[in-house]
Parts: sequence; structure tokens; C-alpha cells
Amino acid sequence: MTSAIEAAFKAIRAAVGPKGVVDDPQELERYLTETRGMYRGRTGLVVRPASTAEVAEVVRLAAAARLPIVPQGGNTGLCGGAVPQDEHAVLVSLGRMNRIRAIDPADFTITTEAGCILADIQKAAEAADRLFPLSLGAEGSCEIGGNLSTNAGGIGVLHYGNMRDLCLGLEVVLPDGRIWNGLGALRKDNTGYDLKQLFIGAEGTLGIITAATLKLFPRPREIETAFLALAKASDAMELFARARAASGDQLTAFELIPRRGLDFAARHVAGIVDPMDRPHAWYALFDVSSSRPGSNLRASLETFLSEVAEAGLIADGVLASSEQQSQQLWRIREAMVEAQKYEGGSIKHDVSVAVSRVAECIERLTVAVEARILGCRPLAFGHVGDGNIHFNVSEPARPDLKTDPAPTKAFLARRLELNDIVHGIVAEMGGSISAEHGIGILKRDELPRYKPAVALDLMRAVKRALDPDDVMNPGKVFTLDELKAEARPRRRAR
Amino acid sequence: MTSAIEAAFKAIRAAVGPKGVVDDPQELERYLTETRGMYRGRTGLVVRPASTAEVAEVVRLAAAARLPIVPQGGNTGLCGGAVPQDEHAVLVSLGRMNRIRAIDPADFTITTEAGCILADIQKAAEAADRLFPLSLGAEGSCEIGGNLSTNAGGIGVLHYGNMRDLCLGLEVVLPDGRIWNGLGALRKDNTGYDLKQLFIGAEGTLGIITAATLKLFPRPREIETAFLALAKASDAMELFARARAASGDQLTAFELIPRRGLDFAARHVAGIVDPMDRPHAWYALFDVSSSRPGSNLRASLETFLSEVAEAGLIADGVLASSEQQSQQLWRIREAMVEAQKYEGGSIKHDVSVAVSRVAECIERLTVAVEARILGCRPLAFGHVGDGNIHFNVSEPARPDLKTDPAPTKAFLARRLELNDIVHGIVAEMGGSISAEHGIGILKRDELPRYKPAVALDLMRAVKRALDPDDVMNPGKVFTLDELKAEARPRRRAR
Repeated sequence: MTSAIEAAFKAIRAAVGPKGVVDDPQELERYLTETRGMYRGRTGLVVRPASTAEVAEVVRLAAAARLPIVPQGGNTGLCGGAVPQDEHAVLVSLGRMNRIRAIDPADFTITTEAGCILADIQKAAEAADRLFPLSLGAEGSCEIGGNLSTNAGGIGVLHYGNMRDLCLGLEVVLPDGRIWNGLGALRKDNTGYDLKQLFIGAEGTLGIITAATLKLFPRPREIETAFLALAKASDAMELFARARAASGDQLTAFELIPRRGLDFAARHVAGIVDPMDRPHAWYALFDVSSSRPGSNLRASLETFLSEVAEAGLIADGVLASSEQQSQQLWRIREAMVEAQKYEGGSIKHDVSVAVSRVAECIERLTVAVEARILGCRPLAFGHVGDGNIHFNVSEPARPDLKTDPAPTKAFLARRLELNDIVHGIVAEMGGSISAEHGIGILKRDELPRYKPAVALDLMRAVKRALDPDDVMNPGKVFTLDELKAEARPRRRAR
Repeated sequence: MTSAIEAAFKAIRAAVGPKGVVDDPQELERYLTETRGMYRGRTGLVVRPASTAEVAEVVRLAAAARLPIVPQGGNTGLCGGAVPQDEHAVLVSLGRMNRIRAIDPADFTITTEAGCILADIQKAAEAADRLFPLSLGAEGSCEIGGNLSTNAGGIGVLHYGNMRDLCLGLEVVLPDGRIWNGLGALRKDNTGYDLKQLFIGAEGTLGIITAATLKLFPRPREIETAFLALAKASDAMELFARARAASGDQLTAFELIPRRGLDFAARHVAGIVDPMDRPHAWYALFDVSSSRPGSNLRASLETFLSEVAEAGLIADGVLASSEQQSQQLWRIREAMVEAQKYEGGSIKHDVSVAVSRVAECIERLTVAVEARILGCRPLAFGHVGDGNIHFNVSEPARPDLKTDPAPTKAFLARRLELNDIVHGIVAEMGGSISAEHGIGILKRDELPRYKPAVALDLMRAVKRALDPDDVMNPGKVFTLDELKAEARPRRRAR
């Protein structure tokens, strides 16, 4: 390590104080390992600044020494976006910045620091009789700064939009350490470029989000949950369009579940039972909700169900008769994901196509992967209303799966091969190879194959404009070489 | 004119063919004059390309010769953003590109060219049993490309969002003539930066939008309209929050109207009558709507009204009993704007603050302008649910106003003075000096006073990254000097 780098590390340590530095090797682990264990991080220093000013000072010092800066929230992303990859990298964990700065029920807004855990924001909103609608599997540990940086999706996108749609303003530390204060509760502001859009979904490559003003909504008073059996996936599309129209656009979630998902869940997760008498090929699970008491939702839903049954669109149906039953039905959706790890290895894809092409896409993907790997077991589920398909391919069944569910290495080794098939078909259909999880490291090298060259040029132009020295989360979204080739030479003090 | 410029003009003419060039002096007028007559344009050539390829060729040729390029839609913007200001400028009118390329009711999407008139898009959606919710005064002549470039707002923002929220994908001709095809009906796509956000609201300074994929919604089946009398503006905020919650978030418009507005409308516009027995200080006009038949909206609204009456929040109220009566009530809102021109000159402001501070803002603005210009008559109305206040100050009443409503020049001459007062207060309250109309030329020179320096730096960085030669709509949003000072020298072939 050169003395310049040593001096920078020393100054950064001083800037955050002893409480802001992680030195304990065991504690360091959680910042360096990634949920699925796909990446192992390397870093020179892990800091946990307590304020925006401290983040700014850390970035200023690191940038001056040309050290790579890697922002990290709850570290629950699945693409390696928060994994540091350089022995000189400064990992900036936002976890100590977890204050809710303001909540205003009349404005339907909340202003929180980046390190706030999503579930805590949901709770704070609820305490003010409001709803913060972002909802996803990791909500108990993911942080809002990470949700913003990855433009998180989840169950509620259909009705409330994704993270981008839920954000009114941002506070960001720029790659040179300056602070841009773009917070504020304005619903309308057309004074120039909408700068917050640059940082949302940029995976930390353009700056570090330190705080945000977010939209709140009226809290639902009535929720009705339906679990319907379908003969084929394509019936879900028609059902979705009809349900959306008939519900007065109050369809707040709409998920597709395959028979295999229900089987997996019932086999491995305690308390999961098939709510119907006989098996069906597909299921649609959806919520209709209203913040208006006496909205007559249930009667409308009953009418709707008898109409679609008469039209032959559904084979069977259950309408939850209590909140508890609703939770039981939703538990199937979660249990299916959980159960997959007891079925050996799986190769996962997070793709999207136009809503109307979801069934066609699932069909094509299934045929293609089954032809490539005999006996493999694709599990296709997802947020149909957003066109988002989670296409997780489980390894072929084997006799010893029950006693040894550990992934078969030879199967996992075929990840890139399956990725190629799946992403190739999705691209052909005008879809996206990353619907909600982002690019990170995982899909970085694939991106140039599927994104038009003009789009990549525009992305690089923006990156160079805001971070000419490529200090912010280098090697994420863009390959290192990609930027090096065009940007001014990296003057790393090695 | 140098021969290089002459050659460029000749090549551009050839690229669009005779049908694509406007030479007739009378016809030229509509491209050079601006709605309110505040600006008079100058241009070297007006072209009307028929396709994206033609737009690209025009831009490529103009950019190569470093000619300023000014995109224009319906020319209904009120900030001068579409006014060419240079004898060598190439004005690119998108009006011939008015095809609807695709409409997909199952996907709830429509793909249209930039020159489509907003009302035509609304009609196409309706024909497919869908709603395109953008709705504003100029909808009969404004074009969607302009709506996108200015991130248009209007009545429906409260429920459906502004133009930015309604856009799924864009096709854009970049400042060097390359085409970025970012069309597509994906609801979720996290493959890198969300490039469309750059061009929406950029007022043509980063490229020319040539087509867009837009969101559609289920069509409302039931609409209930209420017109309520309030003792003070601040009661509207409380009423809004309650109505939003009680309506199950199906409040699709919420407007504030002052007594003066109703007076003006009744005085000058045929068919406008006060729907109440005695005058009140303020009125709230709102719609609750649902695409679900049998949604029980009316009963809920009646319950809501008796509750707010009991709480002393409203002084009187009318619930429209027919579609015709609903239209009559909404006619007051439109007539108020129309009527103002019969009351002499007016100096207009389009500002926003947090929703909860709308009443406070109106109060402060009113006190301040009345103190500065004795007898002036502020008309404060707007989209309360978005925090958007239209603060239009009419000149003091004079005896001959009835016979001579032409603006008093001495009053109009005080525009910048009033702007300073109004924008100063709004800025102090954390608000925006342009809620929905943009910056254009009108607010360009004021912007640096109200926008943080860091934000302006970021904007300039993006502008330079995408349009290093400042050929796209120069002198809009940014002052010419602003960019010149930092960008590489302009090599204009003069």
C-alpha cells in the first residue's frame, strides 16, 4: 500500500470516528459476503458514517485518493451490486443513518435516511394511518437507500408503482463529495432536468443516496383475496385484464403460481395445504383492496368470480373469508420460493415482457430449457400484472433429493448456458433480462449483448459526466474495461 | 450566410422533400408566434419530417453544420420553449408524425408518434375501452411529444401522475442524429439507467422525442362531482386529505376555486351561474371516479359530505345529479381562466409547494402582491392535491374595464417585479417556481437564483454529456452564456 493510500485510509477513519469503522474480522463478514454466496468481497476499509456530512467527507477523501467507493445498504441485493472487489475499496455502509427525519400525513410524505429498514418505514407510515406500499421478501432487513439504488419492485408495483414511482426527492453525495439536496415534498416541479431519476436504479454508480422523501398512501380498510385455478397460463392474462377493469383499478397484487410451486410448498413447508380438492395446472392469487369502508368490494368480487367461471376462464376458486385465510393463501406464494432450496440446485432468472406476452414467454422458456436439460424442473411464477416472470429452474429430480438437497454442482455449472437460452428468448420478445433486481456484477457482462449500443453509449456518457474518474462503485453495471476504454485514464495511486 | 450553411439547408430540404418544408410566409407564422405573443421567433428553415428516419437525417445534417435545432410540437407551451431564436435555426415540427403505431388494450398501452394530438390519443384509448388520463386545456391542439418534453401536468395528475409517470418507453433522435429506440411496453426493466427519464421534461435540449409507449387505464364507469363551499382556503387541505382517504384513493381531481374566480366567470362567460344561494370565500371542486360498476361511490360521497358538514369544514355543497350538471360545475373552472382576459392584464405564476402548505402560500402571496400593487386582484386557483397553485394577478379594477379590457401596459411592465415577490416567497417555502409549464425562455434567467448551484452543475454536466456542441434547443432552460462558459467552444459556421 502506498503512503498516499495509507494517509487516505487514516483520514477517512478520523472522519467517521471509532464508532464508524468496522475492524472486527467476524463483524466484517456480513459486509463482504452476499446473500446467495455468489461473491466474496474484498475491501480496504469498511465505514459506517453517522450523517450525510460524514458520508460526504468519506467520499471526498476517497475520491481524492482515487479509491473505489462501494455504497451498501442491507446487503440483500441478489446481483452483487454492493460487493466491494478491490483491496483498496472503501465500503460505505449506510446502516447507522436510520432516522426518519419527518412524516407528514397531510402531505402523504415521509422523509427518511438511506439506512432505514424498509419494514421500519412501513411501520412508521402505519402509525400515522398511512401506507408505504413497497413490499418485498427482504423487507425486514433491506434498507431504503438500497431499494432506491436498485429501483426495487415487489408485490405492490402493479398498483402503486416501483421504488422510482414512490420517490419525490433525494439527498445524494456526489462522486466528488459534494452534497446535492434534492429533498422536498413537491408533487410537481418542472424546473429543469429531474435529477433524482439519475440516481434511482443507478446501483450506486453515480453517487450515494443518503436520504429520500417518499410518497405515502391512504391505508387499505378492506382487502379481499382470491385464489383461482386455471387450466393454462394464458388464461391468467385475460383474467388479469378483466379483474383490473372490474375492480375499478383496485387490484393491488396479482401473482401467477404454477402447480409445481404449490407442490414444492406443500411438500417442504409446514402448514401449506392445497386449498382445492383436485390439482390444477396454474393458479392466480390476487388482492383487491380499498381504503374506503363500505366499498362493496366483496360483492363485486363475487359477481366477478361467477362471471369468469361462467366464461370458462377459471376451473375453481377460493375467496378468503378472513384475514387469516388471506394470509394462508399468500403464504403459498412465499413458501414456494422458500421450498425450492429443498429441491436441489436452481438457476434463477428475473425477466419481464409485455403483460400480454407473459404466458407465451413462459411457454417458450419452458420448452427451451426442458429440451436443453432433460428432466429439469422450471418454476415460473411472478408478478403477472407487471409482466415480471421469475423463471427459476430446479435441477432434475433424483432419488436421494429428500436426504441430500444440496445443489448438484454439475447442474449449477450450466448457469451461463441456461442464462443464454432464457435471456435470448426474452430479448427476442422485446423483454428485459433484469426486471427488478438490477445488473450489479451478475449481469454486467451480459448486458452489452442485449442492450442496444446507443443505449449503452448514453449510459456511459452519463456515467462519465457525473463520475469521470469512475470512483463510484466501479465494476458494477458497466465492466471496468468498458469505461476505461473511453474515459480519461484512471489515475489510481497504486 | 456562408456557403456551408447554405449547403446544409439545401441538404436538409432534400432530406424531407417538398412536402416537408414550410416556405409560405403566412403558414410560417404559426411556427414562429407563441400562444401568448410573448416571443417572436426567428429561424432559417422550418421542416416537417414525416418519419423518424427523416428527423434523424435533419438532425445529423444540422448538427454537422452546428445549426441550432428547435423541436416543436403543438406550439402551445407557455414558456417559449419551442420558439426558435436564431436566423440559422432549423425548426423541426413533428406534426406530420401523427400515427398511432399500436394500441394494446390487454397490455394497457399505446404507442404513438410525437406529433399525435393529445385529444386524438384520448379518443383512440376510448375506442379501445381504455383511458389515457392526461388532460389539460390545450388538449385539442397540443402534441404528445411536447407533453413529454415538458412533462405536462393538468387535472389528472393527482390520481394518474404527470406525463413522466404515464410513459413506458421512448424513441429519441439524439443530438448527433443517431436514433435511440427505447420503445416497449415493459412495466419493469432494471437493466441500467432509465434513459427515458433524461428526455422527459428536458424541453428538447437533449434530443427530439419521436415516439412513445404510454400507459392506459381502465375507463371510469361512475364519476361523482362535488362543488363545496369553504370559509377559508386552509379548509381545502383538510377536506382533501379526508376526501382522499374516504374515497378509497379514487379522488381523480381536486381543484380550489376562489370567489373572485366564480365572479369573473359569471360576469364574462355565458351560461355560468353560481350554484349556491349566497357567496362563499372559496370552493373545492372534485371528482371521485371508479371503473367498477356498482362501486357505491355516491352513497359513500353522501356520507362523506354529511360528515364534513357536521365537522364544520364546509359551508354548503352541491353534488352533481347528472353528467350534464357535472360538466356545468367543471365549466366554472375553465370559464374562470377564460374570463380573466376581460378583466385587463394579468401576470401569471405557475408554482407549487407541499400540499399541506398550499393555503399558507396563497395567503402569503396575496398579502405580498396586494401590498406592492394597491388594488391588484390576485386569482389563486389550482390543483390542490398536487400542491400546484396558479397565481394569476389581474390589474386593479378601473371604471373603463368593461369597455376596454386590453391590458394596461404600465401594469404588465411590472411582471418581473411581481415574479420576484411570488417566486421569492415560494422558494422560501421550499417550493417550485415552475410546477407544470417548464422553464423555456421565460424562467431561464431566473432559474439560477432559485435552483441550488449543485443541481445546476449536474444539469449542465448532463447537457454537455449528451449535447456537447449545444445544438439542441440552445438558449432554453440554460442561458446561452451558462453553457458557453463551461462547454467546449461553439464552432458555429458563421
